[in-house]
Amino acid sequence: MKVNTGSHGARRYVMRRRRYKHSEKKVGASPGTLIYVGQEIDYKTKIRRIDYNEAAYTVENIKRLASCSRPDDASDIVSWVNVDGIHEPSVIERIGQQYQLHSLLLEDVMNSQQKPKVEEYDGSYLFATLKMLYFKPASEELDSEHLSFVLGKNYLISFQEERKADLFQPVLDRIQASAGKTRRNGPDYLLYALMDLVVDHYFVVLDNIAEKLEGLEDCIIQQAAGQDTLTHLYTLKRELTLMRKAVWPVREMLSRLLLEESELIRPTTIPFLRDLYDHVVQVLDSIDSYRELATGLLDVYLSTLSNRMNSVMKTLTIFSAIFMPLTFIVGVYGMNFDNMPELHTRSGYFVVLGVMAVLTVLMIIYFRRRRWF
Amino acid sequence: MKVNTGSHGARRYVMRRRRYKHSEKKVGASPGTLIYVGQEIDYKTKIRRIDYNEAAYTVENIKRLASCSRPDDASDIVSWVNVDGIHEPSVIERIGQQYQLHSLLLEDVMNSQQKPKVEEYDGSYLFATLKMLYFKPASEELDSEHLSFVLGKNYLISFQEERKADLFQPVLDRIQASAGKTRRNGPDYLLYALMDLVVDHYFVVLDNIAEKLEGLEDCIIQQAAGQDTLTHLYTLKRELTLMRKAVWPVREMLSRLLLEESELIRPTTIPFLRDLYDHVVQVLDSIDSYRELATGLLDVYLSTLSNRMNSVMKTLTIFSAIFMPLTFIVGVYGMNFDNMPELHTRSGYFVVLGVMAVLTVLMIIYFRRRRWF
Amino acid sequence: MKVNTGSHGARRYVMRRRRYKHSEKKVGASPGTLIYVGQEIDYKTKIRRIDYNEAAYTVENIKRLASCSRPDDASDIVSWVNVDGIHEPSVIERIGQQYQLHSLLLEDVMNSQQKPKVEEYDGSYLFATLKMLYFKPASEELDSEHLSFVLGKNYLISFQEERKADLFQPVLDRIQASAGKTRRNGPDYLLYALMDLVVDHYFVVLDNIAEKLEGLEDCIIQQAAGQDTLTHLYTLKRELTLMRKAVWPVREMLSRLLLEESELIRPTTIPFLRDLYDHVVQVLDSIDSYRELATGLLDVYLSTLSNRMNSVMKTLTIFSAIFMPLTFIVGVYGMNFDNMPELHTRSGYFVVLGVMAVLTVLMIIYFRRRRWF
Amino acid sequence: MKVNTGSHGARRYVMRRRRYKHSEKKVGASPGTLIYVGQEIDYKTKIRRIDYNEAAYTVENIKRLASCSRPDDASDIVSWVNVDGIHEPSVIERIGQQYQLHSLLLEDVMNSQQKPKVEEYDGSYLFATLKMLYFKPASEELDSEHLSFVLGKNYLISFQEERKADLFQPVLDRIQASAGKTRRNGPDYLLYALMDLVVDHYFVVLDNIAEKLEGLEDCIIQQAAGQDTLTHLYTLKRELTLMRKAVWPVREMLSRLLLEESELIRPTTIPFLRDLYDHVVQVLDSIDSYRELATGLLDVYLSTLSNRMNSVMKTLTIFSAIFMPLTFIVGVYGMNFDNMPELHTRSGYFVVLGVMAVLTVLMIIYFRRRRWF
Amino acid sequence: MKVNTGSHGARRYVMRRRRYKHSEKKVGASPGTLIYVGQEIDYKTKIRRIDYNEAAYTVENIKRLASCSRPDDASDIVSWVNVDGIHEPSVIERIGQQYQLHSLLLEDVMNSQQKPKVEEYDGSYLFATLKMLYFKPASEELDSEHLSFVLGKNYLISFQEERKADLFQPVLDRIQASAGKTRRNGPDYLLYALMDLVVDHYFVVLDNIAEKLEGLEDCIIQQAAGQDTLTHLYTLKRELTLMRKAVWPVREMLSRLLLEESELIRPTTIPFLRDLYDHVVQVLDSIDSYRELATGLLDVYLSTLSNRMNSVMKTLTIFSAIFMPLTFIVGVYGMNFDNMPELHTRSGYFVVLGVMAVLTVLMIIYFRRRRWF
Repeated sequence: MKVNTGSHGARRYVMRRRRYKHSEKKVGASPGTLIYVGQEIDYKTKIRRIDYNEAAYTVENIKRLASCSRPDDASDIVSWVNVDGIHEPSVIERIGQQYQLHSLLLEDVMNSQQKPKVEEYDGSYLFATLKMLYFKPASEELDSEHLSFVLGKNYLISFQEERKADLFQPVLDRIQASAGKTRRNGPDYLLYALMDLVVDHYFVVLDNIAEKLEGLEDCIIQQAAGQDTLTHLYTLKRELTLMRKAVWPVREMLSRLLLEESELIRPTTIPFLRDLYDHVVQVLDSIDSYRELATGLLDVYLSTLSNRMNSVMKTLTIFSAIFMPLTFIVGVYGMNFDNMPELHTRSGYFVVLGVMAVLTVLMIIYFRRRRWF
Repeated sequence: MKVNTGSHGARRYVMRRRRYKHSEKKVGASPGTLIYVGQEIDYKTKIRRIDYNEAAYTVENIKRLASCSRPDDASDIVSWVNVDGIHEPSVIERIGQQYQLHSLLLEDVMNSQQKPKVEEYDGSYLFATLKMLYFKPASEELDSEHLSFVLGKNYLISFQEERKADLFQPVLDRIQASAGKTRRNGPDYLLYALMDLVVDHYFVVLDNIAEKLEGLEDCIIQQAAGQDTLTHLYTLKRELTLMRKAVWPVREMLSRLLLEESELIRPTTIPFLRDLYDHVVQVLDSIDSYRELATGLLDVYLSTLSNRMNSVMKTLTIFSAIFMPLTFIVGVYGMNFDNMPELHTRSGYFVVLGVMAVLTVLMIIYFRRRRWF
Repeated sequence: MKVNTGSHGARRYVMRRRRYKHSEKKVGASPGTLIYVGQEIDYKTKIRRIDYNEAAYTVENIKRLASCSRPDDASDIVSWVNVDGIHEPSVIERIGQQYQLHSLLLEDVMNSQQKPKVEEYDGSYLFATLKMLYFKPASEELDSEHLSFVLGKNYLISFQEERKADLFQPVLDRIQASAGKTRRNGPDYLLYALMDLVVDHYFVVLDNIAEKLEGLEDCIIQQAAGQDTLTHLYTLKRELTLMRKAVWPVREMLSRLLLEESELIRPTTIPFLRDLYDHVVQVLDSIDSYRELATGLLDVYLSTLSNRMNSVMKTLTIFSAIFMPLTFIVGVYGMNFDNMPELHTRSGYFVVLGVMAVLTVLMIIYFRRRRWF
Repeated sequence: MKVNTGSHGARRYVMRRRRYKHSEKKVGASPGTLIYVGQEIDYKTKIRRIDYNEAAYTVENIKRLASCSRPDDASDIVSWVNVDGIHEPSVIERIGQQYQLHSLLLEDVMNSQQKPKVEEYDGSYLFATLKMLYFKPASEELDSEHLSFVLGKNYLISFQEERKADLFQPVLDRIQASAGKTRRNGPDYLLYALMDLVVDHYFVVLDNIAEKLEGLEDCIIQQAAGQDTLTHLYTLKRELTLMRKAVWPVREMLSRLLLEESELIRPTTIPFLRDLYDHVVQVLDSIDSYRELATGLLDVYLSTLSNRMNSVMKTLTIFSAIFMPLTFIVGVYGMNFDNMPELHTRSGYFVVLGVMAVLTVLMIIYFRRRRWF
Repeated sequence: MKVNTGSHGARRYVMRRRRYKHSEKKVGASPGTLIYVGQEIDYKTKIRRIDYNEAAYTVENIKRLASCSRPDDASDIVSWVNVDGIHEPSVIERIGQQYQLHSLLLEDVMNSQQKPKVEEYDGSYLFATLKMLYFKPASEELDSEHLSFVLGKNYLISFQEERKADLFQPVLDRIQASAGKTRRNGPDYLLYALMDLVVDHYFVVLDNIAEKLEGLEDCIIQQAAGQDTLTHLYTLKRELTLMRKAVWPVREMLSRLLLEESELIRPTTIPFLRDLYDHVVQVLDSIDSYRELATGLLDVYLSTLSNRMNSVMKTLTIFSAIFMPLTFIVGVYGMNFDNMPELHTRSGYFVVLGVMAVLTVLMIIYFRRRRWF
């Protein structure tokens, strides 16, 4: 496995700096103050309104916010307002006024550091927020997008951070394509369909991570791993930790939706939400398994290091144990004493060579017996 | 212990790649869309229908799906439809129509990545899914087969992935052999009998894993372990992790069956389900114990490495400590100074040899005292 | 500490093989089929019946099973049937018929791998099973004996695996000795008394393990530990893991007995069961503490190894650092160049000897400063 | 990353000594005895009273305690008494008398070691205490300030340890600046606003810690880490442990406030408290993630050490393996035997030089093959 | 830090042997049999009775047990009987008879291994038992004293193991000193006051442990730690484990007292018990934090060892890498070949010396570059 880190390294650390930030909200600011917390953005907010029922649908790009207001409770048309961009306080505030939303809710819409949660306000609307996750293969890091939903009796407002691609396009396509399930059902089913899309993406991220993990597993088990491998393993574990932090509250959120029996959620939507809940649990189980596997791999790697060290040390010891005695023997006969009888025998030199050969062979046999090589 | 990895290695990694996959469902597809997620299969689905009561039984291989429909509620005959193959959406969909099953249920039947769960639909039928597990000794890996059951008032539909052998044969044999317990009881007891079969296989897998673990234990405690052993230990822990992930939800599923008091489960079946629940808990306890033992073995192995290193280093140090001074001494008398009085004494050479012998003995005594050998 | 492993080693591994086995029940056998799972036994089942009330008692060794049947509900005599041996399906089945016991209950009586549990059948009798534990000092392993109890209105049946000694003798002695608490109370108190005996044995096992742990602690802290010590530590942890697996469900079982308020348990027995529950909790707490201590000891041992390695390496380095320069210097004056002025000075030899002495002293001072010895 | 530890070291340990202290209360003193537990302080307690409603506000520095008493229940003016300094028992006792507070409450106000909690006294007032946290960059340690609140029907008393800066200034500014949310709401909202301020500071501390963690991550991944780095990592983990200990009870405290539905908390304040609760949960999640990341970094660091050791050992072994044989060969021809035919050949010297060159090249090829360099 | 272990070592291990003992009760003894489990004692039990109400008090040393009996329920005088010594079964049994106490309660009073618990007997009296803890600085170990209380309508019996000092003296002093809170309240407040005394001592023990931990922290961070330090760290962790085991059930016990609303506990005492509960939770939190810190310290220590080893190895490698080539070179010119042209050049010797100097400098530069020193 060859993982490139070079040129991406610098950018990675810049990005991580952002990830670890929690809040840039001025300490002491009044609660409910709208401040955008996230990347700097120069796009303008795009708002699209889709009205549909089983019979028909209309799509409209909204220019003047005044024309976008809370529909009449009696209407049987589902009104989906998709707000693409959460960085303009004035826009968010205006929408909040027209739909009579709580100020804390608006603060949570704009705070891209807000963790996933669901909250019902007086039974008249329900607020849900969660994270879309992407895996960036280059830097091996997760990117997250803050999504919020306001579900009313016959409307749904979805907020997403401005990105190049519109995340919700597949659902819109389904609405346009046919008078299918989405068209027959209310805004609660639409909310489910959008959240299902997000959770499907979690599986894609898991597949990406699993692929990396397999690569590392191959690399470590075939003993081709170096210090880099460990850095990748650490990065993987870190991303799993961060992913868990993002997905865990989604489980809690869905479990509350299922338990609290809000009037805004129709009974026919409940099986779908239960299915979604099961998927999220499955994502969490996989994250935990992967973390365990990564820890296991680390152990394998560390013991590989120890084994390798053992083998290096044995090589050194074998060389020393063979050549130190030999060097000593030849040193003895390099001494300049006048009276050294052996030096003057005819075959002294050859006897010494023979003794040394025997010694070497004995040493080799000894280390073989101890299974050093 | 000798574990062969060679030729199986390649296939193993290919298979694992499949195991870590979560979902191939196209992101954004409408919920309830039927897509088979699993190995590619070219068999055709086989369907077999067994009708039985205490008095009689019939077995029929079904060719035309139209002839297989939901039995009349008043009938006292138990109708067991066994579907062998879950890869043909058209077949699954047709069965769904004839038995009026929810579309999410059908999606779960075909999604071989679906985790075990139980769900009741309006009190009219109950859906349960779990995994059959096999241990493949060659690759030391688990293989899983996705099983689903739909339990109605007087019918049971079982779905299994297409394999060479029919998993449920023993139960069919019992039905055919005698008017025993299965024949006297309803489809809920049949469901129990089939799930009991699956859980019995879990014990077989545990026995296989325990055998491997014992092998590794022997190998490590007798200090015959190498890097390979650790790889096997890691593989074992990984399979235990994956097995836990597959079995844990079964516990939850049975506990829900016991608590929710569905009308589809007769009171006489409850003690059997409680017994099954106890068995699953026992499987989970064993998995946890084995994981702990495996971790303990790793510690033993790592300390063996350290001990071995210590012993290698001692050998090296003893050689160095004995021969370095000796080599130095002979070096001294190899110097070519004109004025070296010792060189010209009669017994100089023999005195030096004696001194070196004494030095060697002292060194050996010293290292003996420090218990280095 | 000197722990002998030699001759017992072989037997140990044979036995462990048995311990890890989960079930030999043929996969696919009908639930409720009676198959003995345990060691092979050639004894015959011994059955003893003790009838007692406050006034009198009788003890009878039963030969013909027909004479042993469920006593009349109205009788005020407590009938205790002790079955010594659970390996003969025909015997167990016959008892089951005469006392009208559920087939799953009989299966659990014979399955020595069954985990501890309690179950009430229709309020007419209560089934409890748990493990007796022994510590075998020779092999440092736990041995377990499968015990089961059936508690009726005025009878108790106890089943135990065949062993040389009768486990329940002390309770029988108390019954015979005096008209004490056991004689005044019902079969529920007798059940308590028997289970109390088992839990008392758990404390004995804990004391044995604690003694071993103290031995290892002394051994490791006084740095007299070798690879053997670690193997013993691992064995100890393994036995603690297995003991926990055997004791944990006993806690659950007693807690259920206390909560469910069965009519078979008289209110006066409740404080005794609560006391027993507290003892089991104490056993579990001790097991957890010991496991933690064992893990702590492992850390101490591993760091001892590192320390020892450090000290070996320092010795080697000191020798090398002193003798390598000296050997180099004497090598210089062993060269055969024609023009080496120092060689021909009068005191050259002695100057070189002096320089080398000074160098050695400097080296020693340097390593002293760095606290290497 | 460069972290200075030098001169601050000494002060740090002195301070830590204080941190680990639990109670200086004389053992055996009567419960409810007022003793200040904290740093020695020579300031005098400052008390400020702010009375406000939507229409107006007054701020008064209180000199005589007698003038500060519990307001009439019927009054619609919110009375906020801020006590700056908790080290004078006489002052605290007097306030307790005038507001009829429980003696245990006063003990908790003065005990700066008291952990966060909330308690309601007879529905007439509510006591809450928590910790303000600061991160001191110089010593890389947390500093905590003990805060307590007494919430009555229309008054709030806040107690803070004496510090140079007044922590609650931003809230006072908001009250003075405009007739905003705080002015329109009751003392319960004021309590929320003050606690929100504290929790906002937790995020600041988290950002500081995250910055340090990023520094250490860079340092360790780029393999520039030394023993110092590990000490910093340890300090960071320790501060995270201590922070968790301070924040965890705040979660419990807010959850109790939300569940118990005290009459002192108006329903309109509940959404704000729920929001605060979510923030605290987010703080705790981040602490846990950081602790995990720190542990992961430690593993990376330790494996870096092992890798480095491997590389050092390889260098040593390569040198030894090349030069030991060569030194032996030249030693052979340094022997002084009379009969050594090679010495007298013309090209003997050059042949030996050639042989040694070839040997060296072979060795280098061998180690290259084994990928040692 | 200098911790003395020498002469105390032997005693320590003897004592520990006692600590790990669980029960000396003869296995099979009848439940409720009174056997003292603890240190051998030759003192006689001392019994003191203090009768008090708000107006007056009397203290009496009781010689004849007959004179000490359960007071009349209607009496408004609180009667506190303090039993100093729990090793004489006859005494404990007699008290049990006179106060009509359950036999299991008496067994728990005498069993100094009994874990803390609370139990109410028929609403007529309440039994509580917990451990007093002392830290013995010499051996760095915890010593525990078994305390039990029986709380009736207007009496309290306290049992303590015989020690030199009377633990409850401060409370007696308060009763004698003034008609304070204790005198105005019932025996439940007295029970609270005595338990508060015990919990205050827990904080003292924690402070002692914290001091030791700080010492070890200084020692390890300043890299002055040796194998001894680790042994101390292990001992500290062991004592924390044992302390947790002793304190954890106290939390449970107080929580039950608060939840069960016994009639024996007056409502005015509840806030005090809640306060006590909070203190115990704080003790447990501190124990957990300290255990974590101790684990963190171990990691720092182990990495210090690795670092030190790295540095030792580098020294060795540098010496070898410099002197091995030099020794080889001088060896070359020590060979005795007839035809070695360099030997006969005028400046050969000096050129070789120069070459060796250059080589040495290059080596040093190389290792500097690799930052080896």
